[in-house]
Amino acid sequence: PDLHAVEEVRARDGRLTKPPGSLGRLESIVEWLAAWQGRGQPAVNRPVVCVFAGNHGVVEQGVSAYPQAVTQQMLENFAAGGAAINQICAAYDLGFKVFDLALDLPTGDITQTAALDEKACVATMAFGMEAIAGGADLLCLGEMGIGNTTVAAAIYGALYGGDPVHWVGRGTGVDDAGLARKVAAVEAALVTHRDHLKDPLEVLRRLGGREVAAAAGAILAARMQRIPVILDGYVITAAAAVLHALDADLIGHCLAGHCSVEGAHREVLERLGKKPVLDLGMRLGEGTGAALAAGIVRAAAACHNGMATFETAGVASRERSTGGP
Amino acid sequence: PDLHAVEEVRARDGRLTKPPGSLGRLESIVEWLAAWQGRGQPAVNRPVVCVFAGNHGVVEQGVSAYPQAVTQQMLENFAAGGAAINQICAAYDLGFKVFDLALDLPTGDITQTAALDEKACVATMAFGMEAIAGGADLLCLGEMGIGNTTVAAAIYGALYGGDPVHWVGRGTGVDDAGLARKVAAVEAALVTHRDHLKDPLEVLRRLGGREVAAAAGAILAARMQRIPVILDGYVITAAAAVLHALDADLIGHCLAGHCSVEGAHREVLERLGKKPVLDLGMRLGEGTGAALAAGIVRAAAACHNGMATFETAGVASRERSTGGP
Repeated sequence: PDLHAVEEVRARDGRLTKPPGSLGRLESIVEWLAAWQGRGQPAVNRPVVCVFAGNHGVVEQGVSAYPQAVTQQMLENFAAGGAAINQICAAYDLGFKVFDLALDLPTGDITQTAALDEKACVATMAFGMEAIAGGADLLCLGEMGIGNTTVAAAIYGALYGGDPVHWVGRGTGVDDAGLARKVAAVEAALVTHRDHLKDPLEVLRRLGGREVAAAAGAILAARMQRIPVILDGYVITAAAAVLHALDADLIGHCLAGHCSVEGAHREVLERLGKKPVLDLGMRLGEGTGAALAAGIVRAAAACHNGMATFETAGVASRERSTGGP
Repeated sequence: PDLHAVEEVRARDGRLTKPPGSLGRLESIVEWLAAWQGRGQPAVNRPVVCVFAGNHGVVEQGVSAYPQAVTQQMLENFAAGGAAINQICAAYDLGFKVFDLALDLPTGDITQTAALDEKACVATMAFGMEAIAGGADLLCLGEMGIGNTTVAAAIYGALYGGDPVHWVGRGTGVDDAGLARKVAAVEAALVTHRDHLKDPLEVLRRLGGREVAAAAGAILAARMQRIPVILDGYVITAAAAVLHALDADLIGHCLAGHCSVEGAHREVLERLGKKPVLDLGMRLGEGTGAALAAGIVRAAAACHNGMATFETAGVASRERSTGGP
């Protein structure tokens, strides 16, 4: 983080026509932008939402309320502008990109085998890195993939331990029988891979999915390119959790866009030291929570960059001073 | 509320390309819009932020960190586009109107006399009603007025009782001595008017301010004109609290935009049965919290109105059905 840039922001903030601290979280968001963009006047002129999509062998265990074909169908819906994320991007003027990660080649069923071999895992992370090469000054990460809340739950179970049921939620809305199958699948995956879960990258390769691996790559690349990142919900946070387990500092440039109602997302965010910007009871994915938070981040930057100072506006400052226009 | 319109929204929501309930609060916001706009396809095409500004005799008690002249100076800052609310309105494309409520005629010092006489209180409420006559499909209420958090604390103390200190916060940032003066002023006001605080409108007249009276009028007029209202923070909520004390149903069309860190705003919102959309540690006023929430409301409406249905998008629906494009 560029602490000099943060100091510049604080100095300007103190001169803006508002009581000190009165914009609360908006002020700390601007400091975060400055720290990771590495400039004292942070900007949000090219915000981009990147959605990574993958398919998962574990859907064979009956863990989702929707068939696997929906992943591809939703990509077509994204292309046609019909999904929730399309509307939010249009409303907030955010760029939008979708990446099809070999949808016709689902990962291995994690209850029985590794999701990805080493080559595929590394290649997918590298693809995620290149996905943001087009440039951006704010990156929102999202995902689509029937079955991927099961995969994320397995990753959390591997990283944090405890009873697997603790990490499992209803995803797109499975019934009680589906939830039981989902818990059983996570339990089975953790047993199958139990001797290989100490290395976080091995957790990613064995229990993850292509969208999770690509998101992890994108987070790393954004760091190198000085692009602050907004995490979406339960699944994208799993990519951040893998990196955090390697080195907590790797996700310093990531903001938690919202708190999902899926699984134990709130607890995961606490473990990562991330306070979500929004808490709206959402559990859709697609980057919707991150994109909504980008609207707040954009407003925060607009306030900082556009507000007048006490001097230029002729507004009297504190302590009963008597300046005037 | 138009329950038929709510039913229309729910029927359409169930066909949209997302798992049922997955947009959480966004879904209930759309229902709220529909209920109070009285149409099954609610729209946010003409959102307006109205800021009411007034001056307060009680500032003579040393209750603010800023001189009274700042109210007028900030109005000039609004006109020049230099305040925080200007930036948020520009970022979210919200209309913006400011109303100068006789700034050169501060209200009476509530520690000693009534803030307003009956004629002035009624006239200011009527002015607030007419202020929104230009039309809107979503109304955000904001305020500006040095000293008005003291006035709001006095209103809450009168409506809800308890130790006055409980309702008092640091406002624009008074020091400990200023806070003590603020508490003393609220205590004195509640003693001075103690025999006349059973009627909520009398609480408004004696302890309120012009911006609070105008906001109360605007809330009532919006109800009659089928315009949903977003409340800002600690001061605007005092106008809603007065109406709520008259009849809880009078503020059914009001959404709490955010929870302020000022005073006991969180508790007041609970008393009003309002769950804030945002909780960002803000305490600026000007309508900033309401305007940020309007960005969320606009995105909610965009999702509902713009999303494809399962049928039109060719996306398979739940329960492992096998439809396809």
